Amino acid sequence: MEKKDFLYEGKAKKIYATSEENKVIVYYKDDATAFNAQKKGSVESKGEMNNKITTLIFQYLEKNKIPTHYIETLNEREQLVEKVSIVPLEMVVRNYVAGSMAKRLGLEEGAQCPETVFDICYKKDELGDPLINDFHAVLLNAATHEELKEMYQLTDKINELLKDLFLKADLILADFKIEFGKNKDGKIILADEISPDTCRLWDKDTGKKLDKDRFRRDLGEVSEAYIEVYNRLQKVLN
Amino acid sequence: MEKKDFLYEGKAKKIYATSEENKVIVYYKDDATAFNAQKKGSVESKGEMNNKITTLIFQYLEKNKIPTHYIETLNEREQLVEKVSIVPLEMVVRNYVAGSMAKRLGLEEGAQCPETVFDICYKKDELGDPLINDFHAVLLNAATHEELKEMYQLTDKINELLKDLFLKADLILADFKIEFGKNKDGKIILADEISPDTCRLWDKDTGKKLDKDRFRRDLGEVSEAYIEVYNRLQKVLN
Repeated sequence: MEKKDFLYEGKAKKIYATSEENKVIVYYKDDATAFNAQKKGSVESKGEMNNKITTLIFQYLEKNKIPTHYIETLNEREQLVEKVSIVPLEMVVRNYVAGSMAKRLGLEEGAQCPETVFDICYKKDELGDPLINDFHAVLLNAATHEELKEMYQLTDKINELLKDLFLKADLILADFKIEFGKNKDGKIILADEISPDTCRLWDKDTGKKLDKDRFRRDLGEVSEAYIEVYNRLQKVLN
Repeated sequence: MEKKDFLYEGKAKKIYATSEENKVIVYYKDDATAFNAQKKGSVESKGEMNNKITTLIFQYLEKNKIPTHYIETLNEREQLVEKVSIVPLEMVVRNYVAGSMAKRLGLEEGAQCPETVFDICYKKDELGDPLINDFHAVLLNAATHEELKEMYQLTDKINELLKDLFLKADLILADFKIEFGKNKDGKIILADEISPDTCRLWDKDTGKKLDKDRFRRDLGEVSEAYIEVYNRLQKVLN
């Protein structure tokens, strides 16, 4: 597989074309941003860890019949994935009250949600990725009602699989966001990454945060948290 | 019916107890607020017009089998209504793109929505009445999924009835918000008011705004707009 033209740079990843039209290479950077990129920094070895963690998780999901863009991991920073057109929605799942939802609803962080909460946000930096609802998503032509239904069903399954996986690693999956894309056949598949950048992970016993909140909230030991999550997942999955 | 203790003051209305436990008096003020009460003012005869407009509309909805809190209009400023416990949600219906949704989604005002858009906002001044979704409403114990379903169904019916009514008065109902309450039997009924304070109304031919946006956006002729809406509705309904 030959790496070709640089295509796109996101906040934490770069995308390159390959010699095959429907495959692209994802390069994981150490760059870290928070609060719609108002806070910027770099976390040593984050790119490497997120590549490795996403690899383990996407392989686990594929084994459990979730369609994803993942093809193979090329090296410490790069994955080969199926080229998709990203659905401009962040699908957010909340098992515990935390982050922006706690703030929006005036709730304390930390309580378990009696039932799983699903949010969707419109991926649009200049609008600050606002929370929207299904009607807005359809109005924006971001997805049809049928596509939303399919994405909610997949997201729910992924949540059940991930809660289970992380619990085996003594981690509580408080919340996370995922993104879907459409491949060349129009099929909706899981894309982007699943890592401590996109999940809130709390140590089951101590409650210690092992995710990007360490960067967002200046809690220190940021790299260490990413390495810890990788080590725990590797132990569980190998 | 004897007017008793003052119970509660909202931004545009006051509520008084009566000699009957399950009935209260709503007094319509001329006070006007916008942008979560950051802008305050007074609009001459607004209270009187909103009382009269709400009277016409609630009588029309009752005739069309929508359960409401309305009992009777007592005088130019006051209505007798069934006492309810307000569901702390604003049910918003959007037939055209305008206001906060236009801003949130980065859309121009004025386009017709291909399908009706429903929003819900959490009634909480200190949080700025944030947009939420059904999962949040249930998490907040604002309503159950079943109650939400019932309120959406009623809201949809009310929208169809109101679009029809306003069109007869040469007005486009661009969007509006309503509130529901639970009466002593736990039944969900329409409460609050429906007036140019709570609806965006555009003249069908000229597009002239005949609603609270004249106050919000300093367009002038505010009282005149409320009087115009009342006169047109009265002509259609009498």
